[in-house]
Amino acid sequence: MFCSEVLQNNGVCLQNATTTAEVLVSSDLRGIASHGVARLGRYLEGIRTGTIVPNAKAELLDLSESMTSLDANNGLGQVVSVQAMNTCIRKAEQHGIGIATVKNSNHFGIAGYYVLMALEKNMIGVCMTNSAPLVTPTHGAEAVLGTNPIAFGAPAGRYRPFLLDTATSVVPRGKLEVYHRSNRTMPVGWAVDENGLDCQDPGKVLDNLIHRLGGGILPLGGRGEEFSGYKGYGFALLVDILCGVLSGSGFALNVDNLHSETTQNKSALVGHFFMALDIKRFMSLEGFRDRMDTLIKQIAGSRKSHGQEKIFIPGEKEYLAAEQALLCGIPLADKVYKTLESFAQEYGIAAPRCLPPKGKPKA
Amino acid sequence: MFCSEVLQNNGVCLQNATTTAEVLVSSDLRGIASHGVARLGRYLEGIRTGTIVPNAKAELLDLSESMTSLDANNGLGQVVSVQAMNTCIRKAEQHGIGIATVKNSNHFGIAGYYVLMALEKNMIGVCMTNSAPLVTPTHGAEAVLGTNPIAFGAPAGRYRPFLLDTATSVVPRGKLEVYHRSNRTMPVGWAVDENGLDCQDPGKVLDNLIHRLGGGILPLGGRGEEFSGYKGYGFALLVDILCGVLSGSGFALNVDNLHSETTQNKSALVGHFFMALDIKRFMSLEGFRDRMDTLIKQIAGSRKSHGQEKIFIPGEKEYLAAEQALLCGIPLADKVYKTLESFAQEYGIAAPRCLPPKGKPKA
Repeated sequence: MFCSEVLQNNGVCLQNATTTAEVLVSSDLRGIASHGVARLGRYLEGIRTGTIVPNAKAELLDLSESMTSLDANNGLGQVVSVQAMNTCIRKAEQHGIGIATVKNSNHFGIAGYYVLMALEKNMIGVCMTNSAPLVTPTHGAEAVLGTNPIAFGAPAGRYRPFLLDTATSVVPRGKLEVYHRSNRTMPVGWAVDENGLDCQDPGKVLDNLIHRLGGGILPLGGRGEEFSGYKGYGFALLVDILCGVLSGSGFALNVDNLHSETTQNKSALVGHFFMALDIKRFMSLEGFRDRMDTLIKQIAGSRKSHGQEKIFIPGEKEYLAAEQALLCGIPLADKVYKTLESFAQEYGIAAPRCLPPKGKPKA
Repeated sequence: MFCSEVLQNNGVCLQNATTTAEVLVSSDLRGIASHGVARLGRYLEGIRTGTIVPNAKAELLDLSESMTSLDANNGLGQVVSVQAMNTCIRKAEQHGIGIATVKNSNHFGIAGYYVLMALEKNMIGVCMTNSAPLVTPTHGAEAVLGTNPIAFGAPAGRYRPFLLDTATSVVPRGKLEVYHRSNRTMPVGWAVDENGLDCQDPGKVLDNLIHRLGGGILPLGGRGEEFSGYKGYGFALLVDILCGVLSGSGFALNVDNLHSETTQNKSALVGHFFMALDIKRFMSLEGFRDRMDTLIKQIAGSRKSHGQEKIFIPGEKEYLAAEQALLCGIPLADKVYKTLESFAQEYGIAAPRCLPPKGKPKA
């Protein structure tokens, strides 16, 4: 695999490179380009600066029949996270439930990937991570929290599994970048300026974030209390408590905030949380699948808004994107593909073949 | 206690009446009047119609060292929920973690109450419940999901504990009722009409909900995708999967929807989910408390929005309300107090003394 070869050329062992590449490509496959191979350059940068230790061995502590904590020792987020979720699944097989915290990690890709691992074993999966401070708390004018995503999945029967994978901010940083590149004005309610007031200029918000001048992205629910932005803010804190405080990792301003004047970290100090739950302890798997189908049918079959034809179940759009990509190839942005080509030249390896060139899906 | 006496006069045994009253009053104490003694009348109605079986014995199934499922047998939600969280705490003491599902239950008051039980034992607590369908899915025009709250708490040191207790809808039904009583127009983004279009008339939305004509309250994030309403919708489904599908209880349209033409239920079929996590397995309690204090200090001490003086930590407002109420008494709305007085007359018991009359706080 192309990404794996690039990583191996940067000192990552075969196994770790394969795992990391697998998580990155699976993100593109599911239509989440922001967390896919477009991140490869940043990973290489992390390896060069020492933030990512390519072949770090994670230390695993058994806390109880069902509980584990891992220290990633600054290794690749994907590698320790696959290990953590595998441990949860094994404990859930034996004792019904497995949870794991991870500290001193790095960016791990999409949270949903690890939930998919649980789904493959017919378990309910949970995954969270904290992340670099981009989000302002309610009534705040400074980004002190990450977009801190929560992922949750459960298998169904005739329908595709339920898979929620969502940042606790109103939008991801990538959305601001898209608006900035196309010179678009943002809706009121996505972000605030350095005074904590509505700001519709994505360039200004991004610049403020980069230079830590204040302001940032709003939590889910928006600014102030009218649309309950304190709920999204509360969910972001929930994630930071499990992933950062409880794990022993960084939290709030100390996560992945390497260039900030407020911290002196060389390590990203990202923390994660994982859970796997064995459905068969509660009821037969068939019974659960049937009940999930009934739920999905009730929701998807309910009355549509005027002008809408479909109610999507969380995860459905990503499953559709993956099914399409398996037929036609993964569409990549020109810029991303060119970066991959430059890696190919630099390391003297073949350009990626599995991905159709220049963003055109294969016939 | 007054509420307990009223419940006992309706066939509830002393122990169950005390537990239920305790949860209701603790809601008023924390400033959450919508889930407090104002609900007493509805509970009595439930007992009269047979939806609530006042002295039902819950059946408890041990699923593993850390897992329990309970069947409330249509008993009072508070009674089975206290039992469920106590079971979680006991299992967490022994094995680090305890989780419990509850099926065939009724309204259980505030989710935060059961998280407080875990906090008293210096544990992290989680509690969720599904509820009557009031919320429309993204692109939907029919209320098929409850306001399905999520509560999460963690102890701190010098600061009050973190306690998030929040519906996954943008606002609770009670907010629409407040706006309706005062003839106010709602902001766009709280609710939709029977066509799934923005509706600012709270009376119309409430009427539509009562008669199941379509429309309802929007999930956290609002209508459509611009402010990511599908995230609130996803969280509501997450709650229904754990509380309804996994527990074996009702879910979506079958929860607490007794008068709907779409269901023939006599039972409310409410389901809950509980978790307790022993912090000491991960690190010393003192270490955790210190880290929580650092987190809270960083957030609360960060830059305020223009015109704002304080950044609240989730739960802080409720702790402040409780501290005030313990000094001055619990302020009750006139209407609620009059209802309680009428119960006092009906059952020949003394009117509530611990609550100051007519909503005026005691000096």
